[in-house]
Amino acid sequence: MENLKKIKVKDIMTTDVIYASPKDNVIGAFEILLKNKISCLPVVDENKKVIGIMTTTDIGYNLIIDRYTLETTVGDVMTKEVITITPEESIADAIKKMDVYGNSKEIINQLPVVDEEGKLIGIISDGDIIRVLSKILKEK
Amino acid sequence: MENLKKIKVKDIMTTDVIYASPKDNVIGAFEILLKNKISCLPVVDENKKVIGIMTTTDIGYNLIIDRYTLETTVGDVMTKEVITITPEESIADAIKKMDVYGNSKEIINQLPVVDEEGKLIGIISDGDIIRVLSKILKEK
Repeated sequence: MENLKKIKVKDIMTTDVIYASPKDNVIGAFEILLKNKISCLPVVDENKKVIGIMTTTDIGYNLIIDRYTLETTVGDVMTKEVITITPEESIADAIKKMDVYGNSKEIINQLPVVDEEGKLIGIISDGDIIRVLSKILKEK
Repeated sequence: MENLKKIKVKDIMTTDVIYASPKDNVIGAFEILLKNKISCLPVVDENKKVIGIMTTTDIGYNLIIDRYTLETTVGDVMTKEVITITPEESIADAIKKMDVYGNSKEIINQLPVVDEEGKLIGIISDGDIIRVLSKILKEK
């Protein structure tokens, strides 16, 4: 498990992140998620500071129980307590955060990566971590 | 990484699996996924043998590009090449399968667990694996 403490978030994060603005329409945001086959959309302000997050699971659930109207914006319904990580933290730190800040049913599948000012610079997913583990296992 | 070879799939799999029939309507299947906040639905025949799989990502993408009609069934559009795993295989095996059988963009996030007859007895997700890793990291 020592390897997991040595590999940094910046070594495996995705830097080409699709994100939303709080003013965006929530149905439009759901379409962006589905069209791009992604499961999570960080929400940023005009300075690219992360201020919220939306997941396909959350939007889909609320759509299906008719909780949104055509006027609902991302800012109205996004999760404001976003768990983020910094590029210098390790994969082990990411694993712990995904577990600890998840709920009893589910982990947090994606963590936005932010710089010292809280600005979005990347994203790291549980899938990125599984890929690293697979590589380490193959090398042994 | 030795721990990952010792822990078996059956030790951490979920046994209470929600699944679909090939005759189910695809829109209905999408609703089941969203309502239950799950991302994958194994498809089984009348003997509970796994014959396909559907993910929220796949259904959502095809819905958004209008590829389905109201009559489309799960059997029409499910992925028939399902990557499964057995309860006696290890977490390391699951990690490798999720990576190797994924595509360049994404891993396989969930593997149905089947018995020697191919019948569905559980499911294991990347989230289940992250939770185990987090526990191991805490113990060190």
